[in-house]
Amino acid sequence: MESRHRVVILGGGFGGLYAAKALRNAPAGVTLIDRRNFHLFQPLLYQVATGSLSPGEIAAPLRSVLRNQKNTTVLLGDAVDIEPGANRVLLRDGGAVEYDSLIVATGSQSAYFGHDSWREWAPSLKSVEEATAVRHKILFAFEAAERTEGPAERIAWLTFAIVGGGATGVELAGALGEIARRTLKDEFRKFRPEEARIIVLDSAPRVLSSYPEDLSHKAEQQLIDLGVRVRTGVRVVGVDAEGVDFEGPAGKERLAAKTVLWAAGVAPSRFGQVLAERTGAPTGPRGKIAVNPDLTLPGYPNIYVVGDQALIPGKGGEALPGVAQVAIQGGGYAARAVLKRIGGAREIEPFHYRSKGDLAVIGRAKAVADIWGLKFSGLAAWLVWLFVHLMYIVEFQNRVLIFVQWGFEYLTWSRGARLITGAAATDTIGGLKPMKNREADLGE
Amino acid sequence: MESRHRVVILGGGFGGLYAAKALRNAPAGVTLIDRRNFHLFQPLLYQVATGSLSPGEIAAPLRSVLRNQKNTTVLLGDAVDIEPGANRVLLRDGGAVEYDSLIVATGSQSAYFGHDSWREWAPSLKSVEEATAVRHKILFAFEAAERTEGPAERIAWLTFAIVGGGATGVELAGALGEIARRTLKDEFRKFRPEEARIIVLDSAPRVLSSYPEDLSHKAEQQLIDLGVRVRTGVRVVGVDAEGVDFEGPAGKERLAAKTVLWAAGVAPSRFGQVLAERTGAPTGPRGKIAVNPDLTLPGYPNIYVVGDQALIPGKGGEALPGVAQVAIQGGGYAARAVLKRIGGAREIEPFHYRSKGDLAVIGRAKAVADIWGLKFSGLAAWLVWLFVHLMYIVEFQNRVLIFVQWGFEYLTWSRGARLITGAAATDTIGGLKPMKNREADLGE
Repeated sequence: MESRHRVVILGGGFGGLYAAKALRNAPAGVTLIDRRNFHLFQPLLYQVATGSLSPGEIAAPLRSVLRNQKNTTVLLGDAVDIEPGANRVLLRDGGAVEYDSLIVATGSQSAYFGHDSWREWAPSLKSVEEATAVRHKILFAFEAAERTEGPAERIAWLTFAIVGGGATGVELAGALGEIARRTLKDEFRKFRPEEARIIVLDSAPRVLSSYPEDLSHKAEQQLIDLGVRVRTGVRVVGVDAEGVDFEGPAGKERLAAKTVLWAAGVAPSRFGQVLAERTGAPTGPRGKIAVNPDLTLPGYPNIYVVGDQALIPGKGGEALPGVAQVAIQGGGYAARAVLKRIGGAREIEPFHYRSKGDLAVIGRAKAVADIWGLKFSGLAAWLVWLFVHLMYIVEFQNRVLIFVQWGFEYLTWSRGARLITGAAATDTIGGLKPMKNREADLGE
Repeated sequence: MESRHRVVILGGGFGGLYAAKALRNAPAGVTLIDRRNFHLFQPLLYQVATGSLSPGEIAAPLRSVLRNQKNTTVLLGDAVDIEPGANRVLLRDGGAVEYDSLIVATGSQSAYFGHDSWREWAPSLKSVEEATAVRHKILFAFEAAERTEGPAERIAWLTFAIVGGGATGVELAGALGEIARRTLKDEFRKFRPEEARIIVLDSAPRVLSSYPEDLSHKAEQQLIDLGVRVRTGVRVVGVDAEGVDFEGPAGKERLAAKTVLWAAGVAPSRFGQVLAERTGAPTGPRGKIAVNPDLTLPGYPNIYVVGDQALIPGKGGEALPGVAQVAIQGGGYAARAVLKRIGGAREIEPFHYRSKGDLAVIGRAKAVADIWGLKFSGLAAWLVWLFVHLMYIVEFQNRVLIFVQWGFEYLTWSRGARLITGAAATDTIGGLKPMKNREADLGE
């Protein structure tokens, strides 16, 4: 047993989990290491941030998912460094793990265009803690608006700026529009929640800029129908406790908003950055790590990088996007490549990504789809979105829970998980002031 | 409108929420103030702590529950002081709220027999944050046991001490027994989870000491069947990161346990303590506030105290316990008393508690019941427990979600919300060390 090929997988997201599953019957000892004990279904994280789902409903314990895979060990650990010459990964607690093949699937983290101080006032959506922080900020803003007496102050509490008009930004904005118009209806006595102003800021000329142009326009129209304002072609130059500064064709502007949410830049994970440094791997735009056609690192044929942080050229030459499908297919590919090499193969066919298309949801019966060679929007796109997301939810139990939650939300517009919780809850309520992210609360 | 009688309710737990609901059609302006935006179904909090349910599933937004009650305003605020002469409650952010009648339902907090330093190593079960902290500690202990190499170290990680053998302690211990024996089965490679040692420590001669003696013995037997060890007649004298010290008939003992959970003493809320001071109300055992037969404070006929922190003599003269039923009935009574006084009544019939009996659950098909004049245990008691708890869950949506979660747990022994999250997650994983409670994370 000891002489079995040792495959170490870093990260239990889509890339890592699908790699591990593909090694189910492998003649190898597999070790999956993650800082968290659960796989997170990240595409639905915005629904945690907007009170529709609970974190537990979009998470599945890695151990439980892989329990019957006897060749696989799951370890809780934080990989912080690597000695690629010695085939060794170093953990933060001083432990070390040796590998024969390494699959790096540590994902991406949010990046603030070089302004790390913005993070403290504009949480993003990368972890459960960040999602509950966003939820806290959104729900607390309405509570504070009920408590405050000054009209200008109330408007600032009821103004929500979302930086970034990609899928996450659009989904957040649409959900916020529904919260203000439907979920919170009749719940306040001093103002009408529909008065809330929701503004999406993006530097691109249109939202969902990686989608076909007509779908972008449909998405924008659907957002407008929910009362969301879209400001494209503007560049954010400042974020603080009281609002956001941006520059556009009309010059510099200031938006007074006590709630600023970040759905813009990403960068490779901390481990990915260390890996690039230690192996001398070249990096591309947004710091993505350039890989060989078989997803290995130049000079290290036993180190695979999959998912968000790998720079993989697609059909048209542009880099593949950081979406679940790319990670899922990359993880599976890397696992099969390891298997083939264990089996003695010298030539491995290059990774070939089969796009399943793009889907973004804006609200009830509001979505855009570019799949199966078809472009469509509205109810049909929304139904496809619902179906696809329910099907990919890892655990059957979660699927039923989410179905129940969504069913109720559909019938009542209510949201099942509207909690202001977390370390910061007491602070903000004490002073009626905007929540400040604390480093320790958020992690990467 | 401005001359309406102003009823202020502090706290949105069972007492406060049922008081507010009873004032639905009152010719009065009602203001409900809570530090949280949600009602928490506290009897199921131990299921959050043991990974069966998500916090959102046992919480209902107060605003949403009371949305159609037009005479009622819900405010997020932290009441920290009172000027009983001026009929004014002071909030932590500097705000003040005036009342004509005040219903105080701010509940209890955990107390550590005067040793506040124990809190940092032994979280209790009073808030959502504490429940997720307990969940963190329990799940992390098994993870650390998989990572550690030393046998003594592993045993300490696999030892769980629960201080207190009342309903909460017994429920926690039973759930832990099932986690170790069933939920985590086959999930670890270095040890068998059934090796975990779960020990309940109580100073009373038996667990559930307020229950009839034969039910206590049945409960103890059911715990033993789940592998739990019960140590009664022992007094805890120390808690630290590595274990617990206690004294019993056999002298002083030390139990090496990296996980210590607190299910013992409670004390009135911080506001309750301030209230007693400002009004000179006498306090009894455990700091409970003595009230008149109509639940008002001596000398303050417009201030009612209901729920956990009120000292109310029961039939036999002993104080009513801090359970949901006492709070629910007290809240409803106080609301009706206020209404009668608005209507001109001079004489108010004293509060009379109708006990609905006692129920405690240990595990699947394991429970004890003392209701409807009957004492029984096992499957029947468990089914009654399930039914009663599902019926009392405030929102219909939650009821269905919990039913689904429980249904799956029944079929598969899996638990739907096994997440290690929170501010402390990164710390502990970094150093493989037990989690330390941080003041800010826990609140009261």
